[in-house]
Amino acid sequence: MTYAVVMAGGRGQRFWPKSRNKLPKQFLSLVGEKTMLQRTVDRLKGLVTPDRIYIITTATYTQLVAQQVPEIPSENIITEPCGRDTAAAVGLAAITVASREPAAVMIVLPADHYIADEEHFCTVLKGAVAAAEKGEYLVTLGITPNRPETGFGYIARGRLFGTFAGIPAYIAAGFTEKPDQERARQYLASGNYYWNSGIFIWRADLIERMFREHMPDLYTGLQEIKAAIGSEQYQKVLISVYSSLPQISIDYGVMEKAKNVLVLPGNFGWDDVGSWTALEAYKAKDRQGNILEGKGVLVDTQNTLVLSSEKVVATLGVKDLIVVVGGDSVLVCHKGKAQEIKKVINALQEQGYKEIL
Amino acid sequence: MTYAVVMAGGRGQRFWPKSRNKLPKQFLSLVGEKTMLQRTVDRLKGLVTPDRIYIITTATYTQLVAQQVPEIPSENIITEPCGRDTAAAVGLAAITVASREPAAVMIVLPADHYIADEEHFCTVLKGAVAAAEKGEYLVTLGITPNRPETGFGYIARGRLFGTFAGIPAYIAAGFTEKPDQERARQYLASGNYYWNSGIFIWRADLIERMFREHMPDLYTGLQEIKAAIGSEQYQKVLISVYSSLPQISIDYGVMEKAKNVLVLPGNFGWDDVGSWTALEAYKAKDRQGNILEGKGVLVDTQNTLVLSSEKVVATLGVKDLIVVVGGDSVLVCHKGKAQEIKKVINALQEQGYKEIL
Repeated sequence: MTYAVVMAGGRGQRFWPKSRNKLPKQFLSLVGEKTMLQRTVDRLKGLVTPDRIYIITTATYTQLVAQQVPEIPSENIITEPCGRDTAAAVGLAAITVASREPAAVMIVLPADHYIADEEHFCTVLKGAVAAAEKGEYLVTLGITPNRPETGFGYIARGRLFGTFAGIPAYIAAGFTEKPDQERARQYLASGNYYWNSGIFIWRADLIERMFREHMPDLYTGLQEIKAAIGSEQYQKVLISVYSSLPQISIDYGVMEKAKNVLVLPGNFGWDDVGSWTALEAYKAKDRQGNILEGKGVLVDTQNTLVLSSEKVVATLGVKDLIVVVGGDSVLVCHKGKAQEIKKVINALQEQGYKEIL
Repeated sequence: MTYAVVMAGGRGQRFWPKSRNKLPKQFLSLVGEKTMLQRTVDRLKGLVTPDRIYIITTATYTQLVAQQVPEIPSENIITEPCGRDTAAAVGLAAITVASREPAAVMIVLPADHYIADEEHFCTVLKGAVAAAEKGEYLVTLGITPNRPETGFGYIARGRLFGTFAGIPAYIAAGFTEKPDQERARQYLASGNYYWNSGIFIWRADLIERMFREHMPDLYTGLQEIKAAIGSEQYQKVLISVYSSLPQISIDYGVMEKAKNVLVLPGNFGWDDVGSWTALEAYKAKDRQGNILEGKGVLVDTQNTLVLSSEKVVATLGVKDLIVVVGGDSVLVCHKGKAQEIKKVINALQEQGYKEIL
């Protein structure tokens, strides 16, 4: 059977002050009424029944997850005792699924991405599931790039391996880190590169084998936890073992090393919505290029994003700004700096404003 | 004896969102702890005892005045039923003072100006009082300009008339409206022009005579009100007459027409503090030219003024901005537009945000 594992433990800070330590991006309604997590779960429902959808998150957010997606059985909320990056999280999800059904195909995907064409997304995922079912290949979705983006990792496409449910699958010839501008332009021009979507499809027993091969320390720890699943010792073992697991990403720990990776091209309007400026694509602009969501007046103002549900924001004679009022805080940021909000978080931390982070 | 009349009826909107219709500039603590009104009254105390200090304001602000300067007897708070510009306000104050002491010298001054050198200010005022005592001249203080300011009116200096308490007094050769940049430069270079401070010193009986001569309609109305002073009819007469008085400024109505005007130069660090940017002169800046009053962090930020007593403001990658959080509102304004805050007020009014004006 097919299972899905939604990764909802991230602490993304780039939407401060709307996102907070206690309320990161995946739990916000950034596009439309539903939260990113709710949208992610909704779009899986055509493929996987809710009882086979798992959400993995850290203890801080377990309650939030239960509130936001009540249709997911509470035993399907996998709680990491602490954040240990994606390799450990995927591993914990994999042993959980494998202990229920060892040869299960699991779709692993982040809770905080936007997908415009959900129907095509499901079509590609069906192909990916078909490709993964034999249990020989780790499968990933590669996003057809439409700009020389330097903020994503890329996957090089190798030879065509086959076609699954109508979707071509290529041997992945290599994963690369975020490129510089020049290299990103080359990748785009070549037509041989995809954006790394962070969406993976594989059999639970295969990823376990890959951990044994490429991350033996992680594998050993996971097996210890797996042996305790269903026993009274589970929580105790989990807490004691998990915090000592290696803290690296699944890309770095497995995908970049494995030879048996297939990539299926996905052109379904994917976006990781990584910053306030990325959000603009989903909002209506006025003739001056401004977006106003909430209360405010924008006078002599151009290309400015204002979000304020509470205070009335008045802008005068400004351009290219992001103004967000959230909770007890106000952000005024140049659009060119939207990727650097971490600097603000750090400064607030240093100045002792911890209660608003 | 010498009396003072503090004009505190203005509705100055250029400090929105700190200033509101119900709390204009003169009632705000823009520089230091005390409000502009309190500072104005304090600096008069070396010259005039509180029982001879009058405050003229509109009905909206009577309570505020009483709260802010409790040392002023309540009968010295003159309430205009409505705002009718400065000629009518000066007239109402003049008949009030004259009915108590016809030959009194009255100092008329705005409640919302800043004066750096209060000692020298008092010295010059003493000279002005001496010059006014004979009852032949309207006396005004002219501020020695230090820049080609286009935001003020100017007074041309004529021949030296005499010296009073050590201060030279010149015949005023003419009042001019706000000049353009070129003319302002000429005024500054000539050394023959002063800024019109809006501070006037004259005998109450003389300004009454001047109204009779230059503004006979105003004079007639004022005499009707004056006849009712001390009677039970006063409020009724005041309300019925005052709203029909001509609505023009004392400069335009009297000063520009009168031939008997003396100007005494004052170089005491006067400033009308007409906008958020004007306020910057009185605040400490960091090395990037930023001013932060209240809570916030300024990251990669230059030449920016942030005032927020309540919310935490974070700026990132911006420059030359004014960010003010006040009440239910947030202003984000380019410094070059600080004079145009009326546009924001108008936009807010149009959009129905009347409760925050």
